[in-house]
Amino acid sequence: MNIIVDSIGGDKGPEEIIKGCVDAVNEVDINITIVGREDKIKEELSRYTFSKGSIDILNSEDEITNEDDPALAIRRKKNSSMVMGLKALAEGYGDGFVSTGNTGALLAGGLFIVKRIRGIERAALATVYPTRKGFSLMLDIGANVDCKPEYLEQFAVMGSIYSEKVLGTSSPKVGLANIGVEEGKGNILVREAYDLLKETNIDFYGNVEVRDIPEGVVDVIVCDGFVGNVILKLTEGMAITLFSTLKEEFSKSFKSKIGALMLKPQLKSFKDRFDYREYGGAPLLGLKKPVVKAHGSSDSFAIKNAIRQAKTFIDKDVIKIIENEINILE
Amino acid sequence: MNIIVDSIGGDKGPEEIIKGCVDAVNEVDINITIVGREDKIKEELSRYTFSKGSIDILNSEDEITNEDDPALAIRRKKNSSMVMGLKALAEGYGDGFVSTGNTGALLAGGLFIVKRIRGIERAALATVYPTRKGFSLMLDIGANVDCKPEYLEQFAVMGSIYSEKVLGTSSPKVGLANIGVEEGKGNILVREAYDLLKETNIDFYGNVEVRDIPEGVVDVIVCDGFVGNVILKLTEGMAITLFSTLKEEFSKSFKSKIGALMLKPQLKSFKDRFDYREYGGAPLLGLKKPVVKAHGSSDSFAIKNAIRQAKTFIDKDVIKIIENEINILE
Repeated sequence: MNIIVDSIGGDKGPEEIIKGCVDAVNEVDINITIVGREDKIKEELSRYTFSKGSIDILNSEDEITNEDDPALAIRRKKNSSMVMGLKALAEGYGDGFVSTGNTGALLAGGLFIVKRIRGIERAALATVYPTRKGFSLMLDIGANVDCKPEYLEQFAVMGSIYSEKVLGTSSPKVGLANIGVEEGKGNILVREAYDLLKETNIDFYGNVEVRDIPEGVVDVIVCDGFVGNVILKLTEGMAITLFSTLKEEFSKSFKSKIGALMLKPQLKSFKDRFDYREYGGAPLLGLKKPVVKAHGSSDSFAIKNAIRQAKTFIDKDVIKIIENEINILE
Repeated sequence: MNIIVDSIGGDKGPEEIIKGCVDAVNEVDINITIVGREDKIKEELSRYTFSKGSIDILNSEDEITNEDDPALAIRRKKNSSMVMGLKALAEGYGDGFVSTGNTGALLAGGLFIVKRIRGIERAALATVYPTRKGFSLMLDIGANVDCKPEYLEQFAVMGSIYSEKVLGTSSPKVGLANIGVEEGKGNILVREAYDLLKETNIDFYGNVEVRDIPEGVVDVIVCDGFVGNVILKLTEGMAITLFSTLKEEFSKSFKSKIGALMLKPQLKSFKDRFDYREYGGAPLLGLKKPVVKAHGSSDSFAIKNAIRQAKTFIDKDVIKIIENEINILE
């Protein structure tokens, strides 16, 4: 198995990504092709010990940045690490692709270069959402801001398969993110999607009140990309605001500072429970090959986890299973 | 000035609502008509001291519950406190209406009985959203789950007026809730609403990243009712989950329990900063008369605040100003 990793686009530079690749080949039985500036990659690799032959390099001269227009960048920057990596994937030089780069460009590139599975109407970006009980898989989180009910139906099926095969949840419960639990609640999109979801053979839980999402009542949360992105971003924003308000409160007096000091391990463990890094990357579901988006701020640990996730994605033949299920749906 | 208050529908029973009415007339110069079961209201009122003549009673024999279908209940339960209160308002026996009851029924009743201002396409439910810096007014939070761009434009204008006149914000900044800050971001609805908002004479801030909403970057947040409800409910859910996770962590060891004890005043102040009660009720904007929805779990303090808010709503002639601005818009 060979996984192609884009060394360009991380907030922490290629160093962390390359270290993550070395850690991955040292830990699991895979080969990695790192795409990027060859001299830089060679220089970084020379610092580490790993089995020769497990990592090779695909040289690319150009870069797609977060400021680039996604569709334009994919069309024009033929020599960028992302386009070259996706092309290598599409042409069979690798079994999966991991990138920390421009999310929009990765989506556009996935659609134009790797292409959708036959029968899939839209590819969705999924993420692991940390909850009090563990985590839920949520999709779509931003690839499709305007959706039809049929897209949500396909997202539900793909999410259910990914949750079972890659995240290891047995018979995952799939819920529709909504503003009430009763059937008939919500806007036209979710009401129509509800009717479609009832007819699938996934374990459809029904509507999930958005209020209950952080508690972790279902394994897979389905929503359109606008709402999914709202949920994700608000969760981050709330966590940031609550942490800083807490900090403000705790530094108000000498006594409270002592109290906070005594609670240091608990406060750290509290923060860790809402840490995305443990959970690896966000899979793009609906493409012909596994593509995983790692967070821009990923360190080597997060990169290694994203690569492991891509490996399971490949191992479990998720794409073949999606193909079959989508045919049944039609 | 006479404010009509519905004594039915609160989670805590009519007792808290009636006490809130007494506190209100004792604190500010208004009259109140309490609608509900006359014997119960008389019994409760007999416990308190207040200027006779400042409170009268409108007897109603029926109740709308949270389980009732909103539109059906309004049509059929003619003798319910809510329908009788709204009718009294529409017929001029009062200047404003406050209810803790079924939100959907209050909306339906507002539309059917009080009716929309000429030129207003949809009435919106607005709420005060607690932020780190204070609060923002957010609308729509659930009255209209499927919106057109023109509705959002009107929500923005009404929200700006309410924020200035009732909440006392001078030249309020109005933002459009979105998944990115740049113009052109988001789904079709928000992209088209953006273009309309640029042309109004409100202080349009542009897009507000949902992630930044809890920090409090704008005074008014505009969104469709589905997204607004998602934001509101997820905020509540995140607060609940984070508080209980924190509690779990703090009770892990003897030392951490002591630490938490030392932080008790700070933890309380932290919780209070996210307390909706301070902020009174949620106004229904776009109707011909002031209608305010108080939270179902309101205690007498929250009821008193909702009544004071209705008073300012009336005092400042918000409805007249909305009428004028909507005519300019057209």
